[in-house]
Amino acid sequence: MTGMDVTERVLARADANGEAALERLFALLRIPSISTDPAFAADCVRCAEHLAQELAAVGFEAKAHRTPGHPAVVGHDRSASGRSALFYGHYDVQPVDPLSLWQRDPFEPALDTLPDGRTVIRARGAADDKGQVMTFLEACRAWREETGSLPIPLTILLEGEEESGGASLPPFLREHAAELKADLGLICDTGMWDSETPAIVTMLRGLCGEEVVIHAADQDLHSGMFGSAAANPNRVLARILADLHDAGGRVTIPGFYDGVPELPEALRRQWEGLGFDAAGFLGAVGLSVPAGEKDRTPLEMLWSRPTAEINGMGGGYQGEGFKTVIPAQASAKVSFRLVFDQDPHAIRTAFRDFVRARLPADCRAEFIEHGSASAIGFDTADPAFARARDALTAEWGREAVFIGGGGSIPIAGDFRRKLGMDVVMAGFGQKDDRVHSPNEKYDLDSFRKGTRSWVRILGALAQRPAAS
Amino acid sequence: MTGMDVTERVLARADANGEAALERLFALLRIPSISTDPAFAADCVRCAEHLAQELAAVGFEAKAHRTPGHPAVVGHDRSASGRSALFYGHYDVQPVDPLSLWQRDPFEPALDTLPDGRTVIRARGAADDKGQVMTFLEACRAWREETGSLPIPLTILLEGEEESGGASLPPFLREHAAELKADLGLICDTGMWDSETPAIVTMLRGLCGEEVVIHAADQDLHSGMFGSAAANPNRVLARILADLHDAGGRVTIPGFYDGVPELPEALRRQWEGLGFDAAGFLGAVGLSVPAGEKDRTPLEMLWSRPTAEINGMGGGYQGEGFKTVIPAQASAKVSFRLVFDQDPHAIRTAFRDFVRARLPADCRAEFIEHGSASAIGFDTADPAFARARDALTAEWGREAVFIGGGGSIPIAGDFRRKLGMDVVMAGFGQKDDRVHSPNEKYDLDSFRKGTRSWVRILGALAQRPAAS
Repeated sequence: MTGMDVTERVLARADANGEAALERLFALLRIPSISTDPAFAADCVRCAEHLAQELAAVGFEAKAHRTPGHPAVVGHDRSASGRSALFYGHYDVQPVDPLSLWQRDPFEPALDTLPDGRTVIRARGAADDKGQVMTFLEACRAWREETGSLPIPLTILLEGEEESGGASLPPFLREHAAELKADLGLICDTGMWDSETPAIVTMLRGLCGEEVVIHAADQDLHSGMFGSAAANPNRVLARILADLHDAGGRVTIPGFYDGVPELPEALRRQWEGLGFDAAGFLGAVGLSVPAGEKDRTPLEMLWSRPTAEINGMGGGYQGEGFKTVIPAQASAKVSFRLVFDQDPHAIRTAFRDFVRARLPADCRAEFIEHGSASAIGFDTADPAFARARDALTAEWGREAVFIGGGGSIPIAGDFRRKLGMDVVMAGFGQKDDRVHSPNEKYDLDSFRKGTRSWVRILGALAQRPAAS
Repeated sequence: MTGMDVTERVLARADANGEAALERLFALLRIPSISTDPAFAADCVRCAEHLAQELAAVGFEAKAHRTPGHPAVVGHDRSASGRSALFYGHYDVQPVDPLSLWQRDPFEPALDTLPDGRTVIRARGAADDKGQVMTFLEACRAWREETGSLPIPLTILLEGEEESGGASLPPFLREHAAELKADLGLICDTGMWDSETPAIVTMLRGLCGEEVVIHAADQDLHSGMFGSAAANPNRVLARILADLHDAGGRVTIPGFYDGVPELPEALRRQWEGLGFDAAGFLGAVGLSVPAGEKDRTPLEMLWSRPTAEINGMGGGYQGEGFKTVIPAQASAKVSFRLVFDQDPHAIRTAFRDFVRARLPADCRAEFIEHGSASAIGFDTADPAFARARDALTAEWGREAVFIGGGGSIPIAGDFRRKLGMDVVMAGFGQKDDRVHSPNEKYDLDSFRKGTRSWVRILGALAQRPAAS
């Protein structure tokens, strides 16, 4: 019997498991594992223990490890021989605010039907990243149930702080390096190229998150009694944030573009070949014009150009009605997406200098660090990339493509730098998944065919070089 | 018996009432009449009815009148003869956020002792305006109890929307003009010139409150997936707010300074004579440098120059931790302090044009109006001003001064324009009352000597021209 016959049988088993698999995903989605909000710390622990049990049920030797933050779940099944892999996913989710914009309880998952007929799984975390994690677990389950073992030696690592800076993971990786080291990394936290074309992300931007608080008077003031005579932190902050970009959309922080080369010509041509539909991409969220750097294509803005974004800002009275106050402070959360060789720590320092240089008399700036990660790119010469691409192509009936990614997956860089592994990042998210927004969803097709895709990839990775 | 003898007896009665008066003020302060927050609407009604009963107890024919917003309390006692007066105060208070900065429950008043030995009444509304209102009511009570009547025909109007735009009052004044009309207006909602020098405010700035909401995408977006390609309302709003002032601190809105003359030389000299201590004024709140227009004195900034202040702004994620989101919208509450002949409506229109002119592609602006009032100045030739000044001088042992006011008291302008009355604005607030801030207080001396001041002013206003 050839490997291909086996894979076909495992695929059939995965299909037969469909209904039960959906129930297992729903059970996971019901746990509100919001990592950035301390109020949900106990739910994160509960989620980690739930997943450890799920892994054990599929035959893994699994455990939820304590960390200074939320637990990290690790499972091993090294019964197979051959080249080993480490799969990574995260079980934590984004906050749900504003709750009023959700059409249903974010943690009471259910199937919805979209106007175009697609069936989707609606819940916070459905796409980012619980649904994607479960495509891999269900693929392992099908292999185990159908053949009695996994096709390759496998370790699974499920993190609980991906949405909140992930401070605990780097030390955890160092302490457990020997236990986690594998020949290849696998991550399922990315998306399709388009609704029908599967993709492997081979290049990812880095991230530097920073919060700044501008302080002036030692108390809130009446704007009638003190207006214009007293420094207003709202005005000072607005000025600083407005200065972050020039008229052409370039970031003005000195040295910000150090280590940012022009795109290699070959890569540029490959990206042009993708025929990215900027109008469709923006149109899906009610926009029409790329707002970034002039003279850059939208794909460059998203994959190979660094950015500065104000993710949150606030100061003074924001409640109903009006309050004529000059606040004692105002704050902003700013994130920088980094590319190529930009140094997150140098960027953080440059930003702080940039802010301090703009502080008027009587104002001081307080800074809060929110994590950082360098950008990464992987060597697609590793045969694992070709095998994974062929497996995806076989499942979706469309040639899978190698693409860049706008988001940041710090762990991918850590795998490369700390564990010396290349990482195959394959995921099944769609552009309209509303990740990080109210009414997040994951297509039922992404879940079903995603599971089948991993069944195929695991099978393909198991083949001896001779057989490929 | 001369009027002076009577006044001395009434003052003694006011002193004797001291303890009970404080209890009556505390009872009023316990009612959380926050007018800008709909959650406290019932408390505003309760506060209005409580005051109607207080007025009745002092012999007024009083009633809490329904309005489209919060009730307006009106009381009449026209038993005396001579020139009549209309007293105005407000029973609503500012919101208390951030509650965490209060050293005690804002609505559980108590006496505190300051490091310098002063005894103060600590509660939201202690100074703005419940404590000040009660100085007048207690003065009326002392006159009534000691002499069996008030010295002049009096109407009292207590509003419940002063801190929230006061939309209901102008129509109320129109409908009840005949009932409210008097020869003179009295308002107790201002402060002393310094801790020992009483003041009458004869000039007040106007106000124009406006809220702007910038909308872009039809949903919150992931800044990794959409960053820089998608318009960020936070960035657009920061740019617009930063543009409101030039490097010299001048407001850049076209036409903003129309109707703003240079200060009359006589008034400038009188203000210079006041010897305003800018360092002390700013030092009291932890500041040191006037932040307003270059080449303007702090008193000009506060009394005779218009301003634009960002009272509140917010967009995106402001909770604990970090969320890499590009929000669908961001908003700001901006207020303009107006002087001389500036037209609030023209300013509002100019601001909206200013914002629209700065909207990039895919962004739209929504505007919410938050009330407006023109600036005013009163004719101090009316003998009532001299009599009130002499009464204040007698009580405090320091020559009372005529000053400008940085804040806005729209009702004073309405009294002038709608009821044709000049208004004597005398109040006993101190610079460190923390009005609109956590831990608001009112000096016990302000309450006691304020009551005595009104006893004297009422007595002085009663004197026939021949007797003055």
